[in-house]
Amino acid sequence: MTRKLILDLDTGIDDTLAIAYALASEQADDVRLIGITGTYGNVTVETGMRNALAVTDLLGHPEVSVYPGLDRPSTAPENFRYSPSAGTRRIHGDNGIGDMTIPDSRRSPETTAAADFIIDAAHTYGKDLVIVPTGAMTTIAEVCRREPRIGELVGSITFMGGALTVPGNVTPGAEANIMQDPEAADAILRSGVETTMIGLDVTHQAVLTRRDIERWRRLGTAAGDFLAGMTDFYIDAYSATQPELEGCGMHDPLAVAAALDPTLVTTLGMNLQVDLEGAYRGRTIGDRAHDRLTYSHKTTQVAVRVDIARFKSQFLDRITALASH
Amino acid sequence: MTRKLILDLDTGIDDTLAIAYALASEQADDVRLIGITGTYGNVTVETGMRNALAVTDLLGHPEVSVYPGLDRPSTAPENFRYSPSAGTRRIHGDNGIGDMTIPDSRRSPETTAAADFIIDAAHTYGKDLVIVPTGAMTTIAEVCRREPRIGELVGSITFMGGALTVPGNVTPGAEANIMQDPEAADAILRSGVETTMIGLDVTHQAVLTRRDIERWRRLGTAAGDFLAGMTDFYIDAYSATQPELEGCGMHDPLAVAAALDPTLVTTLGMNLQVDLEGAYRGRTIGDRAHDRLTYSHKTTQVAVRVDIARFKSQFLDRITALASH
Repeated sequence: MTRKLILDLDTGIDDTLAIAYALASEQADDVRLIGITGTYGNVTVETGMRNALAVTDLLGHPEVSVYPGLDRPSTAPENFRYSPSAGTRRIHGDNGIGDMTIPDSRRSPETTAAADFIIDAAHTYGKDLVIVPTGAMTTIAEVCRREPRIGELVGSITFMGGALTVPGNVTPGAEANIMQDPEAADAILRSGVETTMIGLDVTHQAVLTRRDIERWRRLGTAAGDFLAGMTDFYIDAYSATQPELEGCGMHDPLAVAAALDPTLVTTLGMNLQVDLEGAYRGRTIGDRAHDRLTYSHKTTQVAVRVDIARFKSQFLDRITALASH
Repeated sequence: MTRKLILDLDTGIDDTLAIAYALASEQADDVRLIGITGTYGNVTVETGMRNALAVTDLLGHPEVSVYPGLDRPSTAPENFRYSPSAGTRRIHGDNGIGDMTIPDSRRSPETTAAADFIIDAAHTYGKDLVIVPTGAMTTIAEVCRREPRIGELVGSITFMGGALTVPGNVTPGAEANIMQDPEAADAILRSGVETTMIGLDVTHQAVLTRRDIERWRRLGTAAGDFLAGMTDFYIDAYSATQPELEGCGMHDPLAVAAALDPTLVTTLGMNLQVDLEGAYRGRTIGDRAHDRLTYSHKTTQVAVRVDIARFKSQFLDRITALASH
């Protein structure tokens, strides 16, 4: 049975690379991308859905539907309108795709809400469904609240977010996706729902350099030009803001890759919480409550090692093949 | 060849239990406690050495010599005199041993400085020497600075300190031993010296309750009364300050146990740093510099799992036997 994949994206640069990687892996990993749900973070939900539609068109996959998710933290006031910070715009560009211009899709997002789509898919596909959230976790928290058995129903929920054994990227403790809605992430991690965490522990090891992506530019295709130009923007931003990484982090594509092939990472089982207060707000850390700390069943598998060489070659080879048409 | 053990202690309550465990393990683990070096933290160096001499006498081991270590952080001003905080005195008592009264030893500390003693022992005993630091790491940093090959020379340096996957105990990030001298701990962790870290990740799982130590009180010996009374004080302090742990943490004894029998813990290799600034000062965390993050050789083995049942029964059985005389 072909597996089904849902990506919950705030479609910025690495989300776009995650879409490309997922589409490029459909044959090799026997999986079909059945939908993209829109969350916020790198961009607003609106911009992210626009990008997801335009990117799937450009990559030759207009069959992928896009669903609107929740557009703000559950704790935000009624009149709150999310907009990405200056720091976020510096990394992803004002339009979320490195200020590259690609045609708008003629398609529109679906009217079905993201949480409804995900819960329906969980019941329809069961263990054949893989869910990969890579943005603010507000919609996924809503899914877990409405369907607490979601973790047992589906194949896996493999999220990009958090940092357990390394520093955060928005504060010394907090990773950007978790920081968008710490309460939502905390609710998921303490809900008993089984998850796999692809955090900065591994994504900061999987970095791309300008030399890695030369192949895309040399393709001479619209897709190749777009992916290379967008990723150049991202590499420049990283070299300005986080030079110690010596490249740009392949956050979201690594989450997709690990969801489709868990042997790419080694995990440590943990019962996690998210700190909600003060300078540590947004940090993912082990829960020190006695029962959660000592209970042998751990609900989150935290990736702590990654086969960088295998991931990178697979990532570059597959996306190059996809973008060559 | 009988192994040799040096404990670098700020002899408070769990340090005393670590001494008892080490002495009680000499036969089973074929090891001899050849010296205790005095550091600060739970108490001053002076009080800690007083306690170490009195405790080794009480436990029938007056052959164990005590050596004075550095008594303040390397970054402290010239006129700084260390004294334990109110919070520390609440956990260990004003005298460091739960305000229990035991006779002073007639012995005095040696005149040889702790760092000289440790470096000499490393050259004399090589791989047969195990070093277990469980307080401020100032003296050990001095050892690593003067003998950068110390990690290769000796069997292991297994320190109690830090918290990688769980919160700290003095701030949300910092564990008490590291927080005494973060610069010293950072210098050690980034020096290339091989270490094993027994942090709160595992010591907060290894907790004692009042029922566990009933056996010591029932012995009717001076040692049994002392150990039970002192540990009662510690359990009371924990139930007031950290009730979520449901007992008192066996920090230092677990470090000794894991040093003598590494199969008690499962470790994750990391290249660590210590945060030195602001609200995160004192946190042990993975170094995100590219070479340190991705280099396959990791210098610190961080314990992330512990066989609690085996450690606790071994700990209680051995100390009960020692204290029955």
